[in-house]
Amino acid sequence: MGAAPMAYVLYNEFMRHNPKNPAYFNRDRFVLSAGHGSMLQYSLMHLTGYESVSLDDCKQFRQWKSKTPGHPENFETKGIEVTTGPLGQGISNAVGLAAAEAHLAARFNKPGEEPIVDHYTYCILGDGCNMEGISNEAASMAGHWGLGKLIALYDDNKISIDGHTDISFTEDVSARFEALGWHVQHVKDGNTDLNSIRKAIEQAKAVTDKPSFIKVSTLIGYGSPNKADSHDVHGAPLGKDETLATRENLKWPYGDFEVPKEAYEIFGNAQKQGAAAQAEWDKACSAYSKKYPEEYKEFKQLLSGELPAGWADALPSFTPEDKGLATRLHSQTMLNALAGVLPGFLGGSADLAPSNMTLMKAYGDFQKGQYQERNLRFGVREHAMGAICNGIALHTSGLIPYCATFFIFTDYMRAAIRMSALSEAGVIYVMTHDSIGLGEDGPTHQPIEHLASFRAMPNILMMRPGDGNETAGCYKVAVENTKGINAEKRVRPSVLALSRQGMPNLPGTSKEGAAKGGYIVHGGDAKPDVIILATGSELSMGVDAAKALEKEGKKARVVSMVCWELFDEQSDSYKESVLPSDVEARVSVEAGSTFGWIKYTGTKGANIGVDHFGASAPAPTLYKEFGITTDAVVEAAKKLMA
Amino acid sequence: MGAAPMAYVLYNEFMRHNPKNPAYFNRDRFVLSAGHGSMLQYSLMHLTGYESVSLDDCKQFRQWKSKTPGHPENFETKGIEVTTGPLGQGISNAVGLAAAEAHLAARFNKPGEEPIVDHYTYCILGDGCNMEGISNEAASMAGHWGLGKLIALYDDNKISIDGHTDISFTEDVSARFEALGWHVQHVKDGNTDLNSIRKAIEQAKAVTDKPSFIKVSTLIGYGSPNKADSHDVHGAPLGKDETLATRENLKWPYGDFEVPKEAYEIFGNAQKQGAAAQAEWDKACSAYSKKYPEEYKEFKQLLSGELPAGWADALPSFTPEDKGLATRLHSQTMLNALAGVLPGFLGGSADLAPSNMTLMKAYGDFQKGQYQERNLRFGVREHAMGAICNGIALHTSGLIPYCATFFIFTDYMRAAIRMSALSEAGVIYVMTHDSIGLGEDGPTHQPIEHLASFRAMPNILMMRPGDGNETAGCYKVAVENTKGINAEKRVRPSVLALSRQGMPNLPGTSKEGAAKGGYIVHGGDAKPDVIILATGSELSMGVDAAKALEKEGKKARVVSMVCWELFDEQSDSYKESVLPSDVEARVSVEAGSTFGWIKYTGTKGANIGVDHFGASAPAPTLYKEFGITTDAVVEAAKKLMA
Repeated sequence: MGAAPMAYVLYNEFMRHNPKNPAYFNRDRFVLSAGHGSMLQYSLMHLTGYESVSLDDCKQFRQWKSKTPGHPENFETKGIEVTTGPLGQGISNAVGLAAAEAHLAARFNKPGEEPIVDHYTYCILGDGCNMEGISNEAASMAGHWGLGKLIALYDDNKISIDGHTDISFTEDVSARFEALGWHVQHVKDGNTDLNSIRKAIEQAKAVTDKPSFIKVSTLIGYGSPNKADSHDVHGAPLGKDETLATRENLKWPYGDFEVPKEAYEIFGNAQKQGAAAQAEWDKACSAYSKKYPEEYKEFKQLLSGELPAGWADALPSFTPEDKGLATRLHSQTMLNALAGVLPGFLGGSADLAPSNMTLMKAYGDFQKGQYQERNLRFGVREHAMGAICNGIALHTSGLIPYCATFFIFTDYMRAAIRMSALSEAGVIYVMTHDSIGLGEDGPTHQPIEHLASFRAMPNILMMRPGDGNETAGCYKVAVENTKGINAEKRVRPSVLALSRQGMPNLPGTSKEGAAKGGYIVHGGDAKPDVIILATGSELSMGVDAAKALEKEGKKARVVSMVCWELFDEQSDSYKESVLPSDVEARVSVEAGSTFGWIKYTGTKGANIGVDHFGASAPAPTLYKEFGITTDAVVEAAKKLMA
Repeated sequence: MGAAPMAYVLYNEFMRHNPKNPAYFNRDRFVLSAGHGSMLQYSLMHLTGYESVSLDDCKQFRQWKSKTPGHPENFETKGIEVTTGPLGQGISNAVGLAAAEAHLAARFNKPGEEPIVDHYTYCILGDGCNMEGISNEAASMAGHWGLGKLIALYDDNKISIDGHTDISFTEDVSARFEALGWHVQHVKDGNTDLNSIRKAIEQAKAVTDKPSFIKVSTLIGYGSPNKADSHDVHGAPLGKDETLATRENLKWPYGDFEVPKEAYEIFGNAQKQGAAAQAEWDKACSAYSKKYPEEYKEFKQLLSGELPAGWADALPSFTPEDKGLATRLHSQTMLNALAGVLPGFLGGSADLAPSNMTLMKAYGDFQKGQYQERNLRFGVREHAMGAICNGIALHTSGLIPYCATFFIFTDYMRAAIRMSALSEAGVIYVMTHDSIGLGEDGPTHQPIEHLASFRAMPNILMMRPGDGNETAGCYKVAVENTKGINAEKRVRPSVLALSRQGMPNLPGTSKEGAAKGGYIVHGGDAKPDVIILATGSELSMGVDAAKALEKEGKKARVVSMVCWELFDEQSDSYKESVLPSDVEARVSVEAGSTFGWIKYTGTKGANIGVDHFGASAPAPTLYKEFGITTDAVVEAAKKLMA
């Protein structure tokens, strides 16, 4: 209720959006970063005429299958841009939306012509968002990039769940945003002074080289005579008596869910303006398409999200004669190959580009004054990086952002990665240094439980390729899944775990195999005596072990389990052909936690891995000391066959 | 090398520490938040006379079993306070160390007497630390708390791995710290102007009501004629030629690992000062102990880390007649019980105290001017909260910090939780709203994969109690494990997953059972036809299902798997007695990902859980729609027995 005036001004007066066509591309983007206030957004959407939110939907607030869940969800309700609720994600998504706009505007708009990409990104955020570290990272990034069309309104109500912000939040937020390079204003009475809100937004729009931060001082629960300015109204309903008292206080003589005709009339403004804006944009596009047919074709493709025909041919294949490399180097090859064929491919690293191998050589850095470039320099801001990429992915379906850091630092950005999975943002996470194989940096940098932790996460593909072909195959699947190609047609993000250390290109690997998630790399001809399951840098170890066993007269099969989620989706007959159920002698080997592997090896199998923290030493030493060796695999296999 | 001058001034002149006794309690704490510069700290420790770091240790840098791992590790090297490397953790730990000092000083020092708790916390941090969101959260917290004895030196070398910070980090860091409530200074030439460094530290010490931030401008790789001021020296050695050139440039005529006698003499200062400081402190303690014997007894107990005799008796037991409650409410009972018997128990929530139920009623809020209090108000800063608690736990072994948020938001603080596990910081994580059972807030707030993700993490206990007795048992185990009671004597942190919704107190539960990690709650008399494994809010569902099966003449056993790690540590015979291997009909039920459960149910068992994202609706609706019901358990059990 405290944020209602600023939201009203935005939705009905400033925002260019078309309630009758929420997908209208050139709309201003709005993000309610304080997602627990979702009903405010649903109300405004209903009043301005979004068909996705009827009055009945409002009555079904937070109920099963309703279009009005507890927090705004882009995949549930048309007209919601991104999913918010976990604090700080929304403002960081907004930075991504604004970056996407800046990028497309710089690429496609032509001097002297009507722009075809030209919109603002508005965001309302609260105290909670501003306390979260992710929002500082994102705001620092936005300030660095100088995203002038990003306008954030800070609902400064001084109340959070624990009570008054005095008890934990006394910093000078406005001064901090100034230090981060933002243009900062203050509206002192956000409850009644709509004109000051209007003026501040106008001024924010006039500042084109910096993002704008407008602190709007409000009373939480404004209008409620007994509960305003208290944490009793933070995320909890007023109750019947107080609702009546509030209506009386605000001189609002209407009943529950009773919307007077005048209200709809006033809000009708948004529809009129929206329809006109869309008509103008259609006209601009039409003119553009005639003058710049090539560019327009690419633009349309980005908007449609369709992948260009034959794009996947750019991904190379490898033979055992090709030099063995670390999969992070193969990844570099793939990123650069995709850069040439996917017009919406862009991304970067959290200050580890030379280690993650993520630079696209054909492009420069996305920076103030050169937003058309495609290498993003995120600095050491993993969490914001993920959330910014979510914003980019959800801005335009043809934009395919990737982002990179060491695999261990997914811990810094896990909440954003989960939001990719939940909100169907097609982000590709390029995670190098994927195990104890990184060596000397030691246990603070060595992932152990991370593969398991992502395998357990819904709607995300956790991939760990074992050579060049598999890296190519993983990228193919990752790109395809940004378009929703699975049975449920849900967009899925992917996490690629890539090695620091080199490994050979194996005879039996293939892109097609990798795309199945699990497949036979060695020993597919006959029924095996033992099955060795491996991923990534341990795949060649599995093959070596199989060869050693064959010398002793045993038939050993090696299965690459590059992506469990994909393998589980294969037909039962395929799965049975790869892992025949009557072969119980099974050994898994992976330089990470063994947690979960029993699913494939059975309780009678053996699991070789690392179930403790790593150590600082050269990688070969660690492998030996921790017992991740060819000998150990051979040993375990023989024991099972005995 | 750029940070060497400031570190030299700190270690040899300012810091009160006793190299011959690194455990000297009243020492100043030092944290190298830019942990990749570990060799700088090792060198200084060696030169000032720490026996834990010999010249040979320095030669074994980053090698197997060496005392000089890639990043500073408190559990590996005596004299290292906390483990750093993941950026931003160190400065946040430092806030915790300073908070612990403030707390103990306020509790134990007496007006007019020589203080027995009185030290500074120094921290060196770099650009990377300052880009991370966690450091902004922690700095905001430190500013709010006004921790005057925290002094941070910012090694402003303008270089990170990607190159010059110009490409991603152009905010005004000093202005930001000012906005966060810090006292800010700038040393313009940190390479040669040691006097300015000294003066700035003196001034920082003189400001007692604010933490101090000293920006020290340096050249990375200072002294290296060809590589200084480039990212080539960031985490990579100079190489042989450049090392020689650097020595020549710095007029340093010594060979590899050759330390001239004069150097040791100069650094001998630290030992002299340290021994004198310790002698003084011993004297002060002795005087204190005579005047305040009761207080001194408590103080010594905190320092020793011993738990007071009989402390666990404070944890209540429950019978089925006791009202069923949400485990978050039982948790509140336990926290308040422990508050009365554990002198070092303190903690709080990330702005969710009224939801997490974490307030200790006997105490007020830890705030500026009342540091003796024990309720910590972290604001919405989960990541810093975890790292601050790590600092508190590692400051004094008798301090037992707990911290709380919704279980889902462990995603925001996972890197800090992992550091608890790795660095053996005995923190208790109180995580409520542990499943879809939280209902209407929807999928952004409903944990799915989180239990699995912590079960896969090394050296941490993931617990999910199913009623009052189990909650009590879990707290007992959690507290004990902050003291290293397991076979390896490693301190282990714990994560408690607690429900929002109520559940009955069951007849068969016990603290002792919970402490075993898995035990029979129902049907222990005879060999069962089927075993139902459950945790938390699904435990009573398991019992209901067992009773239904018994009505149909089947013998059903219910096993509470409250903590997998503890169960796995039991003897084989105990495990066999709970889960007889010849009973293959096994059903697990848990309102979370089924990932990993096959370990206990076998591949032929059934796993009932939630392997997709949740939804916004009342909890009973979600349980029904997602098939987590008594009927579903009965059904699955019957199918397995058929």
